[in-house]
Amino acid sequence: MSVLELACEPCVEILKEGGISTKEIDAVLFSSCATDQYSSAIISEMLGIHPKIVHRVDNLCNSGTNAITSAFAMIASGLCDTALVVGAEKGKGPGNRLLWDITRGSFMLPPQWAAIFAKAHMRKYGTTEEQMAMVSVKNRKNAARNSQALFRKEVGLQDVMNSRKIAYPIKLLECSAPCDGASAVLLLSEQRARRLDNPVFIKGIGHQTNSASLAKATSELTRIDAARSATSRALEMSQLKISQIDIAELHDAFTILEIIAYEDIGFAKTGEGGKFVNQEQIIINPRGGIIGCGHPVGATGVAQVAEIASQLAGKAGMRQVRHCANGLVHNLAAAGSSASVIVMGV
Amino acid sequence: MSVLELACEPCVEILKEGGISTKEIDAVLFSSCATDQYSSAIISEMLGIHPKIVHRVDNLCNSGTNAITSAFAMIASGLCDTALVVGAEKGKGPGNRLLWDITRGSFMLPPQWAAIFAKAHMRKYGTTEEQMAMVSVKNRKNAARNSQALFRKEVGLQDVMNSRKIAYPIKLLECSAPCDGASAVLLLSEQRARRLDNPVFIKGIGHQTNSASLAKATSELTRIDAARSATSRALEMSQLKISQIDIAELHDAFTILEIIAYEDIGFAKTGEGGKFVNQEQIIINPRGGIIGCGHPVGATGVAQVAEIASQLAGKAGMRQVRHCANGLVHNLAAAGSSASVIVMGV
Repeated sequence: MSVLELACEPCVEILKEGGISTKEIDAVLFSSCATDQYSSAIISEMLGIHPKIVHRVDNLCNSGTNAITSAFAMIASGLCDTALVVGAEKGKGPGNRLLWDITRGSFMLPPQWAAIFAKAHMRKYGTTEEQMAMVSVKNRKNAARNSQALFRKEVGLQDVMNSRKIAYPIKLLECSAPCDGASAVLLLSEQRARRLDNPVFIKGIGHQTNSASLAKATSELTRIDAARSATSRALEMSQLKISQIDIAELHDAFTILEIIAYEDIGFAKTGEGGKFVNQEQIIINPRGGIIGCGHPVGATGVAQVAEIASQLAGKAGMRQVRHCANGLVHNLAAAGSSASVIVMGV
Repeated sequence: MSVLELACEPCVEILKEGGISTKEIDAVLFSSCATDQYSSAIISEMLGIHPKIVHRVDNLCNSGTNAITSAFAMIASGLCDTALVVGAEKGKGPGNRLLWDITRGSFMLPPQWAAIFAKAHMRKYGTTEEQMAMVSVKNRKNAARNSQALFRKEVGLQDVMNSRKIAYPIKLLECSAPCDGASAVLLLSEQRARRLDNPVFIKGIGHQTNSASLAKATSELTRIDAARSATSRALEMSQLKISQIDIAELHDAFTILEIIAYEDIGFAKTGEGGKFVNQEQIIINPRGGIIGCGHPVGATGVAQVAEIASQLAGKAGMRQVRHCANGLVHNLAAAGSSASVIVMGV
């Protein structure tokens, strides 16, 4: 399947079951790193819909949440009543290398970057290889209950620890895998959404972009400052405290990123992310995270939002989490230089 | 220069003269068909700014007005106070072919498509080759006063009529040329803008996307229905009548498109666009249009908005038009299947 055919799949389901006619879609925003031109209009054509606004949004691994933010803004500003956001990617797409870093003589491949953060966190806070490996064990366990996940076989601690070393201390089973994938979300104006059963609302949005150069990305390689800024903005807008978040999708492209995310978001104190892996109060990455689901780059942020929306609406099927009212999505791009955080609630 | 270096040029000028510090830029939206990944973040990095939201927007020839619309929505929704929109393209970029049409056995090159519309308009309304050629004469005359234009030499009617035939009745001097180019616009919240001298306001926005397939794009090949829908939406939002528009940037990628635009927008009655070329009441394409300025695809819509903003602010220098209070931008994409119209005023 082409990336455009892939993109249509989840849209067809939404159009079938979303209680909306093709005539009512005001915008189609396509999130992808694919280089196809004019792709959002072609997807609209393939779906037989004629929206007002169509364009593609791209910002590498957080393209998806950028598209969600654009759609939110178009609705909140009154330009649209409804917006279909669809993310899709081919595993062999162009989004898997950090090409711009070539010009800086730096790292092209994401695992090398993640290894630097992992080593810094181990050195400063005593985080262990086993704690990082446990992130993969947990997320693969969740993925086993997700029919849409790329990896549906559980792995044990020793499987992860013994998997191929990629860039010390990162091991193969601690890395997300590029793959084909697509996800779509339909955004409606508040007024329209309130007419539906179990609507879920975007309550807060925060973004931050820091330097794309690793040397300046952060003065402290144990944290991702962009994620901290994005989180505080999203929480402020939502008027919620972090203690009120019941469920979260965190950007676990590598295990260390989930541990750092616990701290950046404020689920754990700085330095205590390693120990936080085994907690069970806040449900983290119920669909299996990026490690379990695979990482179709432009689709990932959309899939994260779709998961939290399904959970909050009570429509997550086999992996439904009980009693969740507020959720959070944390989506990074390009060596943590960009971060998006979206807070949702019922 | 790379497309990213090109993109920085107009931004540097805005940062120098816009009365805004790098710390105050909330979003950088990059409009381009270039396939560089994560390009908006790299541009931000090159400019030394750390915005909240960064992403690239792409929808072929109207990428620019799509990015403007997104920036407007982000500000109107309260997510941002300021947004820098920059468009840039290399002349040898990927946006010059209508590739998706291959799958439909249709036309790959835009002049073939424009020729169909030109022939239909000649047949139905008696529009002449000379009338179309005069669009080029007029726009090249305007371009001669624009230091940023690609073509600064005026051409006469016979020059156009005798230029190489591309696809009957379209001649070489009736076609826009792909070229390197960049343009940027700074959007501010209404409250911030009111503190400046001569602020210009976006008063109305309209978009429409019809089928990307030529067979279904319009039942009538003498008009572009998407442009008609987009215009009526933009005017309605602006609460202005078409008779109140003093100046316009129309998407003259080919001469026939400007004639059809006169009719679609409502400057001329349907069928009377050919005769309208010589009117002098409404100033059309004062910078020289796409025919005079060249067509750096992703930059074009931004440059159109920049021109109307400069004119309305009284900052258009040598080509300043007197007494203009309201202006309109008309930006098409991909065989007229997408159209954006933006109405601006003081």
